[in-house]
Amino acid sequence: MTGLPQGAVLVVGTGLIGTSIGLALRANDIRVYLDDADPAVLEVAVSRGAGTNAEPFDVGLVVAAVPPRSLGRTLAAALERWPRAVVTDVGSVKVLPLAELLAAGVDVRRYAGGHPMGGSERSGAEAASAGLFTGRAWAVTPHEQTSAAATEAVRALASRCGAVVVELSPLDHDAAVARVSHLPHLMAVLTAAQLPLAPSAQLELSGQGLRDVTRIAAADPALWTQILAANAVPLRELLTRVRDNLDDVLTALEAVDVPALEELLSRGRRGAALIPAKTGSPAAKQPG
Amino acid sequence: MTGLPQGAVLVVGTGLIGTSIGLALRANDIRVYLDDADPAVLEVAVSRGAGTNAEPFDVGLVVAAVPPRSLGRTLAAALERWPRAVVTDVGSVKVLPLAELLAAGVDVRRYAGGHPMGGSERSGAEAASAGLFTGRAWAVTPHEQTSAAATEAVRALASRCGAVVVELSPLDHDAAVARVSHLPHLMAVLTAAQLPLAPSAQLELSGQGLRDVTRIAAADPALWTQILAANAVPLRELLTRVRDNLDDVLTALEAVDVPALEELLSRGRRGAALIPAKTGSPAAKQPG
Repeated sequence: MTGLPQGAVLVVGTGLIGTSIGLALRANDIRVYLDDADPAVLEVAVSRGAGTNAEPFDVGLVVAAVPPRSLGRTLAAALERWPRAVVTDVGSVKVLPLAELLAAGVDVRRYAGGHPMGGSERSGAEAASAGLFTGRAWAVTPHEQTSAAATEAVRALASRCGAVVVELSPLDHDAAVARVSHLPHLMAVLTAAQLPLAPSAQLELSGQGLRDVTRIAAADPALWTQILAANAVPLRELLTRVRDNLDDVLTALEAVDVPALEELLSRGRRGAALIPAKTGSPAAKQPG
Repeated sequence: MTGLPQGAVLVVGTGLIGTSIGLALRANDIRVYLDDADPAVLEVAVSRGAGTNAEPFDVGLVVAAVPPRSLGRTLAAALERWPRAVVTDVGSVKVLPLAELLAAGVDVRRYAGGHPMGGSERSGAEAASAGLFTGRAWAVTPHEQTSAAATEAVRALASRCGAVVVELSPLDHDAAVARVSHLPHLMAVLTAAQLPLAPSAQLELSGQGLRDVTRIAAADPALWTQILAANAVPLRELLTRVRDNLDDVLTALEAVDVPALEELLSRGRRGAALIPAKTGSPAAKQPG
């Protein structure tokens, strides 16, 4: 079995990501139903051409594109409502919603998680685009009970959206995003959080370095609080290591231990060099 | 008295910043002498048209554009060699070289520090440009004994290079760059320093957020170690506050204290919004 399941795709949640998925699938002539708790938000997505708000039937794949807080609930409801459909999501963390599904006792064999790494500094259906995921990574995260057909369906969804599939377990996924997304986010926040205390003359010396380091700190605090809290375990492990490194820097600065400082800076440079070069459209940005 | 002093300008150190200053002054038809400890480096700057390597005479202003390590020495030598010239520098910290001059017992009335916030990810005379400082801040940092004429000369230098003068004391300057430049640099390094430990599959999920936060960690570790060590006092104060904030995050993640997390993220967003919008050429970047 290859490709998308028979039937239509139902996208639940028509924000930036959900609407962009709808647009990408419609560009492939795939039938798309849209749903959103907010009728006004849904209307924008429909008017953008991302799908129809008609009563869905013959649904083969459900994509839950809702905020982290309501993700577990939405996935459980979809697995029950559509007893033959594959169900996936686009959430930033993968272990917690799976745990919620297992606790709910629903049929998790038809669930495989997903996490497109595309995104934008803008949000909402207005900012959606069929090309949002082009050339970007899309994590596909089957768990131990996921059927081969469900994994294949989610891989096909990512491919149809133009993304590059990266398959890994929910646990590995969460450890990865803790390091490449959630930790950087918190470091940007911690840097920017020192600025409100500054005399305003200090900020006149701001340059591109500060702007780059703090750019993602401008993201929605409520959404990011949900994301970070949902990935607390691997994030705390990394943060503890950063805290230890920071203590080492404080000690090195006090002792004017130049070799220790230079060793850390060299490790940082080696780390920066490991980041894969940018792919996909230069306008697209990663949110979570 | 307004404007540059009578006579020529001598630029000591013909890396990116020194050569760019030479180019900007030559574009204003000002006589420029160049000097560098490395004859090959000097030759590149001369060939770029940044000035002459002839034996200098009638020097009214000396600009020391050398690495932090040799800055105090270079400034003291310039004040002695040119007993009527104003002497300035372009170093990233201001308190330490001033302390070195005071300890050396030279005539510090003719010294006023400077720190152009332009720069580039590239380095060396090859990357120099007359427009490097256009629209960028240039900190001018007279100390208590600086003469009015010396301050005016350094302000005029910055203006002739197209920069926007921001005048502040050496102490205020160092506190400012600790916050808007040195802390962000260390946070980028601490983030990037977690990457060499990652399984390589994790890095496949890297996105623009990680790239932005860690971009400046790619800078020269040896140079940045000198900069950070030279500004250890205000930097340690800020880092201690960041360490305390980080401990609060660890506690909040453990206790799933959502309001505490969201408060920090909101403070980060407020801080990011305080950064002045980009000015000058989009290609120019701030190094130190």
